[in-house]
Amino acid sequence: MSSTSKISSWKDSVLFTPGPLTTSQTVKLAMLKDFGARDGDFIDVIRDISQRLITQVAGLAPDVFTTILMQGCGSMGVESVISSVIPPFGKLLVINNGAYGERMYKTAKYLNIDTIELKYEEDQLPDIDEIDQCFIEHDGLTHIIMVHCETTSGIMNPIDQVGQIAQKHSVSFIVDAMSSFGAVDIDFDACCIDYLVSSANKCLEGVPGFSFIIARSEPFLKTQGYARSLCFDLYDQHKDLSQHGYFRYTPATHTLLAFQQALNELDQEGGVTARSERYKNNHQVLLEGMQALGFQSVVNPENQGYIITSFYYPEDPGFNFDTFYEALHKRGYVIYPGKLTHTECFRVANIGRIFESDIKDLLLAMKQVLADMGVSLSQTSVSNNNIV
Amino acid sequence: MSSTSKISSWKDSVLFTPGPLTTSQTVKLAMLKDFGARDGDFIDVIRDISQRLITQVAGLAPDVFTTILMQGCGSMGVESVISSVIPPFGKLLVINNGAYGERMYKTAKYLNIDTIELKYEEDQLPDIDEIDQCFIEHDGLTHIIMVHCETTSGIMNPIDQVGQIAQKHSVSFIVDAMSSFGAVDIDFDACCIDYLVSSANKCLEGVPGFSFIIARSEPFLKTQGYARSLCFDLYDQHKDLSQHGYFRYTPATHTLLAFQQALNELDQEGGVTARSERYKNNHQVLLEGMQALGFQSVVNPENQGYIITSFYYPEDPGFNFDTFYEALHKRGYVIYPGKLTHTECFRVANIGRIFESDIKDLLLAMKQVLADMGVSLSQTSVSNNNIV
Repeated sequence: MSSTSKISSWKDSVLFTPGPLTTSQTVKLAMLKDFGARDGDFIDVIRDISQRLITQVAGLAPDVFTTILMQGCGSMGVESVISSVIPPFGKLLVINNGAYGERMYKTAKYLNIDTIELKYEEDQLPDIDEIDQCFIEHDGLTHIIMVHCETTSGIMNPIDQVGQIAQKHSVSFIVDAMSSFGAVDIDFDACCIDYLVSSANKCLEGVPGFSFIIARSEPFLKTQGYARSLCFDLYDQHKDLSQHGYFRYTPATHTLLAFQQALNELDQEGGVTARSERYKNNHQVLLEGMQALGFQSVVNPENQGYIITSFYYPEDPGFNFDTFYEALHKRGYVIYPGKLTHTECFRVANIGRIFESDIKDLLLAMKQVLADMGVSLSQTSVSNNNIV
Repeated sequence: MSSTSKISSWKDSVLFTPGPLTTSQTVKLAMLKDFGARDGDFIDVIRDISQRLITQVAGLAPDVFTTILMQGCGSMGVESVISSVIPPFGKLLVINNGAYGERMYKTAKYLNIDTIELKYEEDQLPDIDEIDQCFIEHDGLTHIIMVHCETTSGIMNPIDQVGQIAQKHSVSFIVDAMSSFGAVDIDFDACCIDYLVSSANKCLEGVPGFSFIIARSEPFLKTQGYARSLCFDLYDQHKDLSQHGYFRYTPATHTLLAFQQALNELDQEGGVTARSERYKNNHQVLLEGMQALGFQSVVNPENQGYIITSFYYPEDPGFNFDTFYEALHKRGYVIYPGKLTHTECFRVANIGRIFESDIKDLLLAMKQVLADMGVSLSQTSVSNNNIV
């Protein structure tokens, strides 16, 4: 498994990262084809993807919702929504309990959008009453935006409760479901979601190159002329995609082919339910194994999602994250640095084409690396061979 | 060659389009690997690409220029420059003789940038004296932007003359070299270029998924705080790429791997000079063959680039472009619709991994299709078997 030159190795490292993920070889093989961006066969691919995101993945009616594919990374998808659906005199409420909530706030400020921010600790859920109260304190709010699974910590935010507040105050609700969509069953109606953003290279197990927005057609089709950017003009993008079937500007054709194959494989696996079961099991095996090694997770278990988990650095002064990371990397396992502002931690994601056996391999490698580093966590647990 | 289902065909159609292009199989094979976006080996790929764009492709000194890679399509690269390098009270002059010039103007208007537009016919070069005169008529211009090879028609614009006007008036010069960079030798100093934008899927023969900006460091590093968009903040993007080696937000990792291989293959071919020779020859063979078939090109030969060529529809009323296009498509050749506002024409590009033999195959297929359609152009030429 260990290799000095990963570039020349056919066997990839296993990625325990929040995306780009480990994808199947068949998803990548779908990219071995050049298509003209306006080729009829390629237009069929675009249409197929757009429809299946709504019906197959989100379980929605295609006449009530519409998909808009957007070139670039997930943050560009989020920016395209913020830039495009808030009217000139609109006012946005950003719920921020992590780096991705923070990024939304920053995005809105760049665009000179009137914005209120409710900020919470990165390992804490937002305060629902305070969000409700915010509508009394601030006139003219038109939109709420929040992250579903905040990848910063791995916390799962209560989009259902916040969506109901949005509905109560008759404002639009935008959800960044980047790292949850496809792996968590999301009830758009119960959560009152008007716009949901996600990306090709997350739980749908495609490769990076575009994001997508699932929009409730009725409010979305009233947003013409609001956009603050040509490339991010979601209404314009949708108009061309729905009228002609192709993108206004060049899309990542190969990435879209990979994504169509990824949707086929989601279907073969048994859809969102089966995928969520695999990820939940990955998460459970990871959590038990990490606890057995002596690691402590950051987020309270009841708020912890099963996508990505943050673990505190061990207290043993012999622990050095860079050494730990590199030693795992050499063995073919890629974990992820932490992102919490005030806490020294690292992250392990369990999404992508990875299985219980991969998690167990990782745990065993961690145990060996910790032993090599001379780091002691919980002696009893580390010696418990039944678990790892 | 003909196939009813292109999707299941291993042999791709040959793309005579302005991008995405026909790429080599080895470029596509480089995508069969999943990398974490912050993996050390992947950081090496980013660094290698960034350096080689400046030294190997542009022939520039790495201490005077810097590369900024940007997620998304080429137009996003152009928007990122317009959004990021013009100060709040700057004023932009857009030279527009085609759809891509028009798009720049539209981009600047969305961003509320004070903008002057000089508009010319799509088959005509801009008027250099008028551009110079514009600085007398309009105070406070700070930037000029123009397209090098305007893909709308295939015309090659005089960036050297416009660059010298920019220098004369001490303003910055931005060039959209989307479809020329890598195939046309561009002298950054003689053309006084401060910012050049191009894309992975053009003459460097990679696949779509990102664009890149080559910026003169000295003016660029003074643009901090100008950006009107978080995702398109070029200064911020550059800061992270140069400090950490990785992207702020997820890049299209697979596309970048393909691009590194594409640069290897450019090198193997003999660099920009050898590639330009191949494209020039492709263009020459195409032009002679099309003339022999009786087609007339739109742009005056002395202004015509060797990247893409527009041809008038034949006058024969039996000609129907959709039928012509589809019949060629079925034979495995993809040409491109026209984009001129007032002229019925179509386009044939000769860039990408295509050779004289591909051009000859296309010409022969066109001859057969025209015969099947019963369209007569120039009887003498069509029967001239020596040419096609």
